[in-house]
Amino acid sequence: MPKAVLTISSKNYGAWALRGWLMTKLAGLDFSEKVIPADDPAMKAEMLLLSSSMLVPSLLHDGIKVWDTLAIGEYLNETCPKAQLLPADAKARAHCRAICGEMHSGFASLRGSLPMNIKAHFPNFKVWSRAQADIDRVKEIWTECLATYKGPYLFGKQPTLADAMYAPVVTRFLSYDIALDKACAAYAKRIMELPAMQEWVAAAKAEPDEIDELDAEF
Amino acid sequence: MPKAVLTISSKNYGAWALRGWLMTKLAGLDFSEKVIPADDPAMKAEMLLLSSSMLVPSLLHDGIKVWDTLAIGEYLNETCPKAQLLPADAKARAHCRAICGEMHSGFASLRGSLPMNIKAHFPNFKVWSRAQADIDRVKEIWTECLATYKGPYLFGKQPTLADAMYAPVVTRFLSYDIALDKACAAYAKRIMELPAMQEWVAAAKAEPDEIDELDAEF
Repeated sequence: MPKAVLTISSKNYGAWALRGWLMTKLAGLDFSEKVIPADDPAMKAEMLLLSSSMLVPSLLHDGIKVWDTLAIGEYLNETCPKAQLLPADAKARAHCRAICGEMHSGFASLRGSLPMNIKAHFPNFKVWSRAQADIDRVKEIWTECLATYKGPYLFGKQPTLADAMYAPVVTRFLSYDIALDKACAAYAKRIMELPAMQEWVAAAKAEPDEIDELDAEF
Repeated sequence: MPKAVLTISSKNYGAWALRGWLMTKLAGLDFSEKVIPADDPAMKAEMLLLSSSMLVPSLLHDGIKVWDTLAIGEYLNETCPKAQLLPADAKARAHCRAICGEMHSGFASLRGSLPMNIKAHFPNFKVWSRAQADIDRVKEIWTECLATYKGPYLFGKQPTLADAMYAPVVTRFLSYDIALDKACAAYAKRIMELPAMQEWVAAAKAEPDEIDELDAEF
Protein backbone atom coordinates (compact mmCIF):
# COMPACT_ATOMS: atom_id res chain seq x y z
CA MET A 1 0.00 0.00 0.00
CA PRO A 2 1.51 3.35 -0.99
CA LYS A 3 2.55 5.73 1.72
CA ALA A 4 -0.03 8.41 2.48
CA VAL A 5 0.46 12.13 2.97
CA LEU A 6 -1.58 14.03 5.53
CA THR A 7 -1.68 17.80 5.11
CA ILE A 8 -2.09 19.61 8.42
CA SER A 9 -1.53 22.98 10.03
CA SER A 10 -0.34 24.09 13.48
CA LYS A 11 -0.08 21.37 16.11
CA ASN A 12 -0.65 23.86 18.90
CA TYR A 13 -3.72 25.58 17.48
CA GLY A 14 -5.04 23.22 14.83
CA ALA A 15 -7.94 21.33 16.35
CA TRP A 16 -9.08 19.89 13.03
CA ALA A 17 -5.50 18.97 12.19
CA LEU A 18 -5.29 17.04 15.47
CA ARG A 19 -8.53 15.19 14.74
CA GLY A 20 -7.42 14.10 11.27
CA TRP A 21 -3.92 13.23 12.42
CA LEU A 22 -5.14 11.18 15.38
CA MET A 23 -7.60 9.26 13.21
CA THR A 24 -4.81 8.42 10.77
CA LYS A 25 -2.57 7.29 13.65
CA LEU A 26 -5.35 5.15 15.13
CA ALA A 27 -5.97 3.64 11.69
CA GLY A 28 -2.37 2.45 11.63
CA LEU A 29 -1.81 3.97 8.20
CA ASP A 30 1.79 4.68 7.29
CA PHE A 31 1.85 8.39 6.46
CA SER A 32 4.03 11.44 6.25
CA GLU A 33 3.00 14.94 7.27
CA LYS A 34 2.92 18.00 5.10
CA VAL A 35 2.63 21.07 7.30
CA ILE A 36 1.19 24.23 5.76
CA PRO A 37 2.92 27.27 7.25
CA ALA A 38 0.73 29.50 9.38
CA ASP A 39 1.49 32.49 7.14
CA ASP A 40 0.06 30.76 4.09
CA PRO A 41 -2.93 32.95 3.13
CA ALA A 42 -5.35 30.04 2.65
CA MET A 43 -4.30 28.46 5.95
CA LYS A 44 -4.59 31.75 7.79
CA ALA A 45 -8.09 32.23 6.40
CA GLU A 46 -9.08 28.78 7.63
CA MET A 47 -7.62 29.44 11.07
CA LEU A 48 -9.50 32.75 11.30
CA LEU A 49 -12.69 31.00 10.21
CA LEU A 50 -12.85 33.23 7.14
CA SER A 51 -12.96 30.35 4.67
CA SER A 52 -16.19 28.90 3.37
CA SER A 53 -15.16 25.49 4.62
CA MET A 54 -12.14 23.53 5.80
CA LEU A 55 -9.87 22.01 3.18
CA VAL A 56 -7.24 21.06 5.78
CA PRO A 57 -6.62 18.46 7.07
CA SER A 58 -6.56 16.48 3.87
CA LEU A 59 -5.31 13.00 3.17
CA LEU A 60 -3.73 11.80 -0.06
CA HIS A 61 -3.58 8.03 -0.26
CA ASP A 62 -3.48 5.62 -3.16
CA GLY A 63 -4.36 8.37 -5.64
CA ILE A 64 -7.38 9.43 -3.60
CA LYS A 65 -7.57 12.87 -2.03
CA VAL A 66 -9.94 13.25 0.90
CA TRP A 67 -10.53 16.48 2.75
CA ASP A 68 -12.95 17.21 5.57
CA THR A 69 -12.25 15.46 8.85
CA LEU A 70 -15.31 13.22 8.93
CA ALA A 71 -14.75 12.14 5.33
CA ILE A 72 -11.16 11.26 6.25
CA GLY A 73 -12.49 9.22 9.18
CA GLU A 74 -14.94 7.28 7.02
CA TYR A 75 -12.23 6.73 4.39
CA LEU A 76 -9.82 5.39 7.00
CA ASN A 77 -12.52 3.16 8.46
CA GLU A 78 -13.09 1.59 5.04
CA THR A 79 -9.40 1.41 4.16
CA CYS A 80 -8.13 0.07 7.49
CA PRO A 81 -11.01 -2.08 8.78
CA LYS A 82 -8.80 -3.87 11.31
CA ALA A 83 -8.45 -0.63 13.26
CA GLN A 84 -12.21 -0.71 13.95
CA LEU A 85 -12.46 3.07 13.90
CA LEU A 86 -16.23 2.68 14.14
CA PRO A 87 -17.97 0.28 16.54
CA ALA A 88 -18.97 -3.12 15.12
CA ASP A 89 -22.47 -2.97 16.61
CA ALA A 90 -24.94 -1.08 14.39
CA LYS A 91 -26.58 0.81 17.25
CA ALA A 92 -23.27 1.86 18.76
CA ARG A 93 -21.98 2.78 15.29
CA ALA A 94 -24.98 5.07 14.70
CA HIS A 95 -24.42 6.64 18.13
CA CYS A 96 -20.73 7.12 17.39
CA ARG A 97 -21.43 8.84 14.07
CA ALA A 98 -24.09 11.03 15.70
CA ILE A 99 -21.73 12.44 18.32
CA CYS A 100 -18.97 12.80 15.73
CA GLY A 101 -21.46 14.80 13.67
CA GLU A 102 -22.38 17.00 16.64
CA MET A 103 -18.71 17.85 17.11
CA HIS A 104 -18.23 18.42 13.39
CA SER A 105 -21.00 20.98 12.89
CA GLY A 106 -21.73 22.28 16.38
CA PHE A 107 -20.20 23.79 19.51
CA ALA A 108 -19.52 27.17 17.92
CA SER A 109 -19.28 28.97 21.27
CA LEU A 110 -16.78 26.48 22.63
CA ARG A 111 -14.67 26.91 19.49
CA GLY A 112 -14.80 30.67 19.70
CA SER A 113 -14.28 31.09 23.44
CA LEU A 114 -11.88 28.28 24.25
CA PRO A 115 -9.66 27.87 21.21
CA MET A 116 -7.26 24.96 21.26
CA ASN A 117 -3.91 26.12 22.60
CA ILE A 118 -1.98 23.16 23.92
CA LYS A 119 0.92 25.23 25.23
CA ALA A 120 -1.29 27.42 27.37
CA HIS A 121 -2.85 27.07 30.79
CA PHE A 122 -5.41 29.49 32.16
CA PRO A 123 -6.24 28.72 35.80
CA ASN A 124 -9.74 29.79 36.88
CA PHE A 125 -10.66 30.71 33.33
CA LYS A 126 -14.08 32.42 33.24
CA VAL A 127 -16.50 30.62 30.94
CA TRP A 128 -19.50 32.57 29.62
CA SER A 129 -22.95 31.12 29.35
CA ARG A 130 -23.14 29.84 25.78
CA ALA A 131 -19.72 28.21 25.95
CA GLN A 132 -20.83 26.70 29.26
CA ALA A 133 -23.84 25.14 27.54
CA ASP A 134 -21.46 23.60 25.00
CA ILE A 135 -19.22 22.28 27.77
CA ASP A 136 -22.25 20.80 29.53
CA ARG A 137 -23.35 19.06 26.34
CA VAL A 138 -19.87 17.60 25.82
CA LYS A 139 -19.86 16.29 29.40
CA GLU A 140 -23.34 14.82 28.86
CA ILE A 141 -22.15 13.05 25.70
CA TRP A 142 -19.05 11.63 27.41
CA THR A 143 -20.97 10.58 30.53
CA GLU A 144 -23.60 8.74 28.51
CA CYS A 145 -21.00 6.97 26.36
CA LEU A 146 -18.77 5.97 29.29
CA ALA A 147 -21.80 4.60 31.18
CA THR A 148 -23.24 2.76 28.19
CA TYR A 149 -20.11 1.22 26.72
CA LYS A 150 -18.17 0.87 30.00
CA GLY A 151 -15.03 2.68 28.84
CA PRO A 152 -12.19 3.19 28.97
CA TYR A 153 -12.86 4.98 25.64
CA LEU A 154 -16.14 6.51 24.48
CA PHE A 155 -17.25 3.34 22.70
CA GLY A 156 -15.54 0.72 24.81
CA LYS A 157 -12.20 -0.98 24.82
CA GLN A 158 -10.51 0.85 21.97
CA PRO A 159 -10.47 4.39 20.63
CA THR A 160 -12.79 5.19 17.73
CA LEU A 161 -13.35 8.19 15.48
CA ALA A 162 -15.36 9.74 18.32
CA ASP A 163 -12.34 9.86 20.63
CA ALA A 164 -10.37 11.58 17.87
CA MET A 165 -13.18 14.08 17.27
CA TYR A 166 -13.31 15.01 20.97
CA ALA A 167 -9.55 14.92 21.63
CA PRO A 168 -9.08 18.67 21.00
CA VAL A 169 -11.88 19.30 23.52
CA VAL A 170 -9.94 17.26 26.07
CA THR A 171 -6.93 19.53 25.57
CA ARG A 172 -9.17 22.61 25.89
CA PHE A 173 -10.69 21.38 29.16
CA LEU A 174 -7.17 21.05 30.54
CA SER A 175 -5.91 24.36 29.10
CA TYR A 176 -8.90 26.33 30.40
CA ASP A 177 -9.11 24.57 33.75
CA ILE A 178 -12.63 23.21 33.25
CA ALA A 179 -13.93 21.23 36.24
CA LEU A 180 -14.76 17.62 35.40
CA ASP A 181 -16.37 14.88 37.45
CA LYS A 182 -14.44 11.72 38.18
CA ALA A 183 -15.52 9.75 35.12
CA CYS A 184 -14.89 12.61 32.68
CA ALA A 185 -11.57 13.52 34.31
CA ALA A 186 -10.41 9.89 34.06
CA TYR A 187 -11.45 9.84 30.41
CA ALA A 188 -9.56 13.08 29.69
CA LYS A 189 -6.46 11.65 31.37
CA ARG A 190 -6.74 8.46 29.32
CA ILE A 191 -6.89 10.40 26.05
CA MET A 192 -3.85 12.48 27.01
CA GLU A 193 -1.98 9.25 27.80
CA LEU A 194 -2.46 7.78 24.33
CA PRO A 195 1.03 7.50 22.80
CA ALA A 196 -0.18 9.35 19.71
CA MET A 197 -1.50 12.21 21.86
CA GLN A 198 1.77 12.43 23.73
CA GLU A 199 3.61 12.63 20.42
CA TRP A 200 1.26 15.40 19.20
CA VAL A 201 1.48 17.39 22.43
CA ALA A 202 5.28 17.24 22.43
CA ALA A 203 5.34 18.55 18.86
CA ALA A 204 2.81 21.29 19.73
CA LYS A 205 4.95 22.44 22.65
CA ALA A 206 8.02 22.54 20.42
CA GLU A 207 6.28 24.61 17.76
CA PRO A 208 7.52 28.18 17.25
CA ASP A 209 5.05 30.84 18.31
CA GLU A 210 4.96 32.48 14.92
CA ILE A 211 1.20 32.56 14.78
CA ASP A 212 0.50 34.05 18.16
CA GLU A 213 -1.16 37.00 16.53
CA LEU A 214 -4.02 34.76 15.44
CA ASP A 215 -6.74 35.03 18.02
CA ALA A 216 -9.12 32.65 16.34
CA GLU A 217 -9.18 28.93 16.42
CA PHE A 218 -10.60 26.32 14.12
CA MET B 1 -38.50 -4.02 8.51
CA PRO B 2 -40.23 -1.85 11.12
CA LYS B 3 -41.52 1.51 10.05
CA ALA B 4 -39.20 4.37 10.86
CA VAL B 5 -39.99 7.76 12.36
CA LEU B 6 -38.16 10.87 11.22
CA THR B 7 -38.35 13.88 13.53
CA ILE B 8 -38.16 17.16 11.66
CA SER B 9 -39.02 20.84 12.03
CA SER B 10 -40.36 23.47 9.63
CA LYS B 11 -40.48 22.51 5.97
CA ASN B 12 -40.15 26.12 4.88
CA TYR B 13 -37.21 27.10 7.06
CA GLY B 14 -35.65 23.80 8.14
CA ALA B 15 -32.64 23.22 5.92
CA TRP B 16 -31.33 20.35 8.04
CA ALA B 17 -34.80 18.85 8.19
CA LEU B 18 -34.93 18.90 4.38
CA ARG B 19 -31.54 17.21 4.12
CA GLY B 20 -32.48 14.38 6.49
CA TRP B 21 -35.92 13.96 4.97
CA LEU B 22 -34.62 13.86 1.39
CA MET B 23 -31.97 11.29 2.32
CA THR B 24 -34.63 9.09 3.89
CA LYS B 25 -36.83 9.44 0.81
CA LEU B 26 -33.92 8.62 -1.52
CA ALA B 27 -33.11 5.59 0.65
CA GLY B 28 -36.61 4.26 0.00
CA LEU B 29 -37.20 3.74 3.71
CA ASP B 30 -40.83 3.58 4.77
CA PHE B 31 -41.15 6.30 7.40
CA SER B 32 -43.57 8.60 9.12
CA GLU B 33 -42.84 12.20 10.09
CA LYS B 34 -42.95 13.67 13.55
CA VAL B 35 -42.95 17.44 13.28
CA ILE B 36 -41.74 19.43 16.27
CA PRO B 37 -43.73 22.66 16.55
CA ALA B 38 -41.76 25.84 15.94
CA ASP B 39 -42.71 27.15 19.39
CA ASP B 40 -41.07 24.20 21.13
CA PRO B 41 -38.24 25.80 23.13
CA ALA B 42 -35.60 23.28 22.09
CA MET B 43 -36.59 23.56 18.45
CA LYS B 44 -36.62 27.34 18.58
CA ALA B 45 -33.13 27.30 20.10
CA GLU B 46 -31.89 25.08 17.27
CA MET B 47 -33.46 27.33 14.63
CA LEU B 48 -31.88 30.40 16.20
CA LEU B 49 -28.52 28.62 16.29
CA LEU B 50 -28.48 28.92 20.08
CA SER B 51 -28.09 25.19 20.70
CA SER B 52 -24.72 23.53 21.13
CA SER B 53 -25.51 21.21 18.27
CA MET B 54 -28.38 19.92 16.17
CA LEU B 55 -30.47 17.09 17.56
CA VAL B 56 -33.08 17.45 14.79
CA PRO B 57 -33.52 15.85 12.32
CA SER B 58 -33.37 12.49 14.03
CA LEU B 59 -34.31 9.06 12.77
CA LEU B 60 -35.73 6.24 14.87
CA HIS B 61 -35.56 2.91 13.08
CA ASP B 62 -35.40 -0.65 14.30
CA GLY B 63 -34.72 0.48 17.88
CA ILE B 64 -31.82 2.67 16.75
CA LYS B 65 -31.95 6.42 17.20
CA VAL B 66 -29.67 8.47 14.95
CA TRP B 67 -29.38 12.21 15.06
CA ASP B 68 -27.10 14.50 13.09
CA THR B 69 -27.72 14.65 9.37
CA LEU B 70 -24.49 13.04 8.20
CA ALA B 71 -24.89 10.20 10.69
CA ILE B 72 -28.42 9.64 9.37
CA GLY B 73 -27.00 9.55 5.84
CA GLU B 74 -24.36 6.96 6.73
CA TYR B 75 -26.96 4.91 8.63
CA LEU B 76 -29.32 4.95 5.64
CA ASN B 77 -26.48 4.02 3.29
CA GLU B 78 -25.71 0.96 5.42
CA THR B 79 -29.36 0.04 5.99
CA CYS B 80 -30.60 0.54 2.42
CA PRO B 81 -27.58 -0.40 0.28
CA LYS B 82 -29.70 -0.77 -2.87
CA ALA B 83 -30.35 2.97 -2.87
CA GLN B 84 -26.61 3.57 -3.41
CA LEU B 85 -26.64 6.78 -1.40
CA LEU B 86 -22.87 6.85 -1.72
CA PRO B 87 -20.99 6.19 -4.98
CA ALA B 88 -19.71 2.66 -5.51
CA ASP B 89 -16.25 3.83 -6.63
CA ALA B 90 -13.89 4.48 -3.69
CA LYS B 91 -12.47 7.70 -5.12
CA ALA B 92 -15.90 9.12 -5.93
CA ARG B 93 -17.16 8.00 -2.51
CA ALA B 94 -14.36 9.87 -0.76
CA HIS B 95 -15.09 12.95 -2.88
CA CYS B 96 -18.80 12.68 -2.09
CA ARG B 97 -18.16 12.48 1.66
CA ALA B 98 -15.72 15.38 1.46
CA ILE B 99 -18.23 17.76 -0.10
CA CYS B 100 -20.96 16.51 2.26
CA GLY B 101 -18.60 17.32 5.11
CA GLU B 102 -17.91 20.81 3.74
CA MET B 103 -21.65 21.50 3.69
CA HIS B 104 -22.09 20.01 7.16
CA SER B 105 -19.53 22.14 8.97
CA GLY B 106 -18.98 25.12 6.69
CA PHE B 107 -20.68 27.91 4.77
CA ALA B 108 -21.59 29.91 7.87
CA SER B 109 -22.04 33.17 5.94
CA LEU B 110 -24.37 31.55 3.42
CA ARG B 111 -26.43 30.12 6.29
CA GLY B 112 -26.62 33.45 8.07
CA SER B 113 -27.25 35.71 5.09
CA LEU B 114 -29.42 33.55 2.87
CA PRO B 115 -31.55 31.44 5.23
CA MET B 116 -33.71 28.79 3.60
CA ASN B 117 -37.17 30.23 2.98
CA ILE B 118 -38.88 28.24 0.27
CA LYS B 119 -41.98 30.45 0.14
CA ALA B 120 -40.00 33.60 -0.48
CA HIS B 121 -38.49 35.22 -3.55
CA PHE B 122 -36.16 38.20 -3.40
CA PRO B 123 -35.33 39.49 -6.89
CA ASN B 124 -31.97 41.24 -7.16
CA PHE B 125 -31.03 40.25 -3.63
CA LYS B 126 -27.76 41.93 -2.59
CA VAL B 127 -25.16 39.39 -1.50
CA TRP B 128 -22.31 40.60 0.71
CA SER B 129 -18.75 39.49 0.24
CA ARG B 130 -18.37 36.56 2.63
CA ALA B 131 -21.66 35.00 1.55
CA GLN B 132 -20.51 35.51 -2.03
CA ALA B 133 -17.34 33.51 -1.30
CA ASP B 134 -19.54 30.71 0.02
CA ILE B 135 -21.73 30.85 -3.08
CA ASP B 136 -18.64 30.75 -5.29
CA ARG B 137 -17.33 27.68 -3.45
CA VAL B 138 -20.67 25.90 -3.85
CA LYS B 139 -20.66 26.66 -7.58
CA GLU B 140 -17.07 25.40 -7.81
CA ILE B 141 -18.04 22.15 -6.07
CA TRP B 142 -21.04 21.59 -8.33
CA THR B 143 -19.12 22.47 -11.49
CA GLU B 144 -16.32 20.06 -10.67
CA CYS B 145 -18.72 17.23 -9.82
CA LEU B 146 -20.93 17.73 -12.88
CA ALA B 147 -17.85 17.79 -15.15
CA THR B 148 -16.19 14.78 -13.50
CA TYR B 149 -19.16 12.46 -13.12
CA LYS B 150 -21.13 13.72 -16.18
CA GLY B 151 -24.38 14.40 -14.29
CA PRO B 152 -27.25 14.68 -14.19
CA TYR B 153 -26.65 14.53 -10.42
CA LEU B 154 -23.48 15.47 -8.56
CA PHE B 155 -22.08 11.94 -8.65
CA GLY B 156 -23.64 10.68 -11.85
CA LYS B 157 -26.83 8.98 -12.81
CA GLN B 158 -28.60 8.93 -9.48
CA PRO B 159 -28.88 11.23 -6.49
CA THR B 160 -26.56 10.58 -3.54
CA LEU B 161 -26.19 12.01 -0.06
CA ALA B 162 -24.38 14.97 -1.64
CA ASP B 163 -27.44 16.03 -3.61
CA ALA B 164 -29.49 15.90 -0.40
CA MET B 165 -26.88 17.94 1.47
CA TYR B 166 -26.88 20.66 -1.19
CA ALA B 167 -30.65 20.63 -1.90
CA PRO B 168 -31.39 23.47 0.58
CA VAL B 169 -28.72 25.53 -1.17
CA VAL B 170 -30.54 24.96 -4.46
CA THR B 171 -33.70 26.41 -2.91
CA ARG B 172 -31.73 29.37 -1.54
CA PHE B 173 -30.18 30.13 -4.93
CA LEU B 174 -33.70 30.30 -6.37
CA SER B 175 -35.17 32.28 -3.45
CA TYR B 176 -32.39 34.85 -3.46
CA ASP B 177 -32.11 35.12 -7.22
CA ILE B 178 -28.48 33.97 -7.44
CA ALA B 179 -27.10 33.95 -10.97
CA LEU B 180 -25.97 30.50 -12.12
CA ASP B 181 -24.20 29.37 -15.26
CA LYS B 182 -25.89 26.90 -17.58
CA ALA B 183 -24.59 23.72 -15.95
CA CYS B 184 -25.38 24.83 -12.40
CA ALA B 185 -28.80 26.19 -13.40
CA ALA B 186 -29.66 22.90 -15.08
CA TYR B 187 -28.55 21.03 -11.99
CA ALA B 188 -30.67 23.25 -9.74
CA LYS B 189 -33.69 22.67 -11.97
CA ARG B 190 -33.10 18.92 -11.87
CA ILE B 191 -33.04 18.88 -8.08
CA MET B 192 -36.24 20.91 -7.87
CA GLU B 193 -37.88 18.43 -10.27
CA LEU B 194 -37.21 15.42 -8.06
CA PRO B 195 -40.63 14.11 -6.98
CA ALA B 196 -39.51 14.17 -3.34
CA MET B 197 -38.45 17.82 -3.66
CA GLN B 198 -41.78 18.72 -5.24
CA GLU B 199 -43.56 17.03 -2.34
CA TRP B 200 -41.42 18.94 0.19
CA VAL B 201 -41.85 22.31 -1.53
CA ALA B 202 -45.63 21.86 -1.70
CA ALA B 203 -45.71 21.12 2.03
CA ALA B 204 -43.43 24.09 2.77
CA LYS B 205 -45.71 26.42 0.84
CA ALA B 206 -48.74 25.11 2.72
CA GLU B 207 -47.09 25.61 6.10
CA PRO B 208 -48.62 28.30 8.35
CA ASP B 209 -46.37 31.29 8.88
CA GLU B 210 -46.34 30.93 12.63
CA ILE B 211 -42.56 31.21 12.88
CA ASP B 212 -42.04 34.25 10.74
CA GLU B 213 -40.54 36.05 13.69
CA LEU B 214 -37.51 33.78 13.53
CA ASP B 215 -34.87 35.52 11.49
CA ALA B 216 -32.31 32.79 11.77
CA GLU B 217 -31.94 29.67 9.76
CA PHE B 218 -30.25 26.39 10.40
